[in-house]
Amino acid sequence: MALFHVRMDVDIPRDLDPEERAETLAREKKYSQDLQHSGKWVHIWRITGKFSNISIFDVETPDELHEILWNLPLFPFMTIDVTPLNKHASSIK
Amino acid sequence: MALFHVRMDVDIPRDLDPEERAETLAREKKYSQDLQHSGKWVHIWRITGKFSNISIFDVETPDELHEILWNLPLFPFMTIDVTPLNKHASSIK
Amino acid sequence: MALFHVRMDVDIPRDLDPEERAETLAREKKYSQDLQHSGKWVHIWRITGKFSNISIFDVETPDELHEILWNLPLFPFMTIDVTPLNKHASSIK
Amino acid sequence: MALFHVRMDVDIPRDLDPEERAETLAREKKYSQDLQHSGKWVHIWRITGKFSNISIFDVETPDELHEILWNLPLFPFMTIDVTPLNKHASSIK
Amino acid sequence: MALFHVRMDVDIPRDLDPEERAETLAREKKYSQDLQHSGKWVHIWRITGKFSNISIFDVETPDELHEILWNLPLFPFMTIDVTPLNKHASSIK
Amino acid sequence: MALFHVRMDVDIPRDLDPEERAETLAREKKYSQDLQHSGKWVHIWRITGKFSNISIFDVETPDELHEILWNLPLFPFMTIDVTPLNKHASSIK
Amino acid sequence: MALFHVRMDVDIPRDLDPEERAETLAREKKYSQDLQHSGKWVHIWRITGKFSNISIFDVETPDELHEILWNLPLFPFMTIDVTPLNKHASSIK
Amino acid sequence: MALFHVRMDVDIPRDLDPEERAETLAREKKYSQDLQHSGKWVHIWRITGKFSNISIFDVETPDELHEILWNLPLFPFMTIDVTPLNKHASSIK
Amino acid sequence: MALFHVRMDVDIPRDLDPEERAETLAREKKYSQDLQHSGKWVHIWRITGKFSNISIFDVETPDELHEILWNLPLFPFMTIDVTPLNKHASSIK
Amino acid sequence: MALFHVRMDVDIPRDLDPEERAETLAREKKYSQDLQHSGKWVHIWRITGKFSNISIFDVETPDELHEILWNLPLFPFMTIDVTPLNKHASSIK
Repeated sequence: MALFHVRMDVDIPRDLDPEERAETLAREKKYSQDLQHSGKWVHIWRITGKFSNISIFDVETPDELHEILWNLPLFPFMTIDVTPLNKHASSIK
Repeated sequence: MALFHVRMDVDIPRDLDPEERAETLAREKKYSQDLQHSGKWVHIWRITGKFSNISIFDVETPDELHEILWNLPLFPFMTIDVTPLNKHASSIK
Repeated sequence: MALFHVRMDVDIPRDLDPEERAETLAREKKYSQDLQHSGKWVHIWRITGKFSNISIFDVETPDELHEILWNLPLFPFMTIDVTPLNKHASSIK
Repeated sequence: MALFHVRMDVDIPRDLDPEERAETLAREKKYSQDLQHSGKWVHIWRITGKFSNISIFDVETPDELHEILWNLPLFPFMTIDVTPLNKHASSIK
Repeated sequence: MALFHVRMDVDIPRDLDPEERAETLAREKKYSQDLQHSGKWVHIWRITGKFSNISIFDVETPDELHEILWNLPLFPFMTIDVTPLNKHASSIK
Repeated sequence: MALFHVRMDVDIPRDLDPEERAETLAREKKYSQDLQHSGKWVHIWRITGKFSNISIFDVETPDELHEILWNLPLFPFMTIDVTPLNKHASSIK
Repeated sequence: MALFHVRMDVDIPRDLDPEERAETLAREKKYSQDLQHSGKWVHIWRITGKFSNISIFDVETPDELHEILWNLPLFPFMTIDVTPLNKHASSIK
Repeated sequence: MALFHVRMDVDIPRDLDPEERAETLAREKKYSQDLQHSGKWVHIWRITGKFSNISIFDVETPDELHEILWNLPLFPFMTIDVTPLNKHASSIK
Repeated sequence: MALFHVRMDVDIPRDLDPEERAETLAREKKYSQDLQHSGKWVHIWRITGKFSNISIFDVETPDELHEILWNLPLFPFMTIDVTPLNKHASSIK
Repeated sequence: MALFHVRMDVDIPRDLDPEERAETLAREKKYSQDLQHSGKWVHIWRITGKFSNISIFDVETPDELHEILWNLPLFPFMTIDVTPLNKHASSIK
């Protein structure tokens, strides 16, 4: 298994059709929740004051992670930064 | 309760006495594990390839977090960056 | 209680309808003053030469702060940076 | 009167004599509290997780501010950034 | 009196009406020269190769400076950075 | 399998004992070549004009990569940045 | 021969005609694969989570590399950074 | 004639002999004042809160400026940034 | 005489009329070549992989250089950075 | 042939033996001048106000350039940045 720290900063263009906007956000939510239920999208937190999240993914490979991120409904409006993580020697888990 | 994302980058000086170094690292580990058992230091991950960790804290207030960080045995050798987090509207937890 | 240092940089698009612009700025002012009267938005200062402010918030939790910031009428046109603060040991207050 | 936002990041060298260190920190505290009592050093907050503070000064002129900062006992070990502030049009004070 | 170093970087949108552009630049010039004659805008230099200037202001307070900058005809198209200055101990003036 | 792009910038302290320096560099070379022969350290290139390399690793997991990097003989003198990679849709391999 | 590390970050404008977009991407793929078959475009990897690639070129001269990059169908929508590489003394190849 | 904006940030090492320090600062002051009297070092201001100055030089050529800066008694302890300036079209001087 | 290192990064808007674009590029080329023949624009090189050049100018004064740069046909679409240079003590020229 | 733009920033440690310092600088000068006479080190300019140079190299390959730079007597005290260049379409040379 492979752990990744992912930061997503969202910037939806002002002129996006409101219906398309609402529909994209709804699809994004469902897409995220399906992956959370599957155990691959382990955590998602909002950054205070920003249209951004910090997430933890637990996937088989970087290829699987890229596949997930590339298909995010909000992908065209996001800047994404991926940092690989490891179990820490001090972790009690 | 208040969630915080904390990144710690460690830079131990080369000329630190090896015994002091070992003893400080041991105290750091115990200090971290006590706080993990208490439920305040919720996650700690190593960043791949770096003497750095990313941690999640769940504390009562920023004051409590500062008290915890300020007393880290490695504090004098760390650069620490704190980002406040929130529950995300898409989170299933 | 939790103290936060918040910097807001405003960038209103040139093609925003002037009436919408004026109305948004008026709502922003009222929104801010209501929160100042409630004691949650403790300070707001203009940065000299910039369409930016530095503010201090005193809230229950980061969640409450995010709720406040996310609902700012100017939120879609702002970049916001949040830094958690603590009482300083040298403070006489 | 003139308002200034001042950030001070402290980096005390590891090899500073412990007595000199303690004495300098004590002088810094007294120096700061005297200026707080005089009304010139209006606020001082600790930044969570850092040996840094954010302060607000209310002085007659930038010259007076420079005089104050230059004579901080910790000045040789600090990086200081000064940002001029103004009363904000939305402020209720 | 209070001295400030001000850098202004100008970025006029390509689609600004040419007449409005010419008229704004003319008003900017007059506005600047009036303040130069008053002794408040002490120096203005062009940065070689850029649509930018570095200026020195000598004003009563930061509030007065902000008032001046906020009302620059080009203000909506400028990025402005303000640095407070002081008389230097080596200056012969 | 998991592909990673790794940049290593080396900064050996001037006062390192020359023998220790030579011995560390020799161990680093052997360590790298063993991993190259094993197929895990797929590429290593020197960056022109710098004491730095860019490498490609093909490992089972980020944990395995961290284990490899953490045990580099030059690790204490390196800054390491890891970027996860994927097969590219246009790649003919 | 001359080795170069090339990073390409793609940012296709949202309002590009979808047919032109699809046709440009198809031409880009063929262009890249032809150069891969010729042995000049030695590697191409996707950066996880980004519309970016990291590539290695092996060309006769920087002039040849520039010619190749300048004629990429996606060139007008790319930011390209080129770093010259060398054989590493520890490389077993 | 040629105008240059020069920023000098001073960082005197803590272990410099106090006498050498005092003597260097005295020579720096005299050196600066001689050049001010000659009309070449037109302005020197202290940046509030920093061991830094911003200066304006009016010299024959960049070569003359480099000669002046290179021979500053504090040169070995300074970071210097030079920006060429021009008369501004709005200047009344 | 005065030597300057000038970097020009070009970013022509996508919606510029193709004829205006071609005509501007042609004027830029002629403008540059005239100045090269005059001996003022001493060198111009393309940066590999970028719509950018690095140039060396040899002019009487910074004022003359600004005049030249300000009138570049591509000036409205360029970011320009100017660094003053000097003859190097090791140069054999 | 291959053209490269090289910037070298020199930072000689204060505690380097003065004789070794003088000897290294002398060797650096001779090394540079030999390469200038050979036609490989085409230009070297001092950056005004800095212990830095900007140089142009004309070499067979990046490997040859790296060999030259790696063997600079001042290499251990330098930060070097290499940018590949090309003949510019507007160049008259």
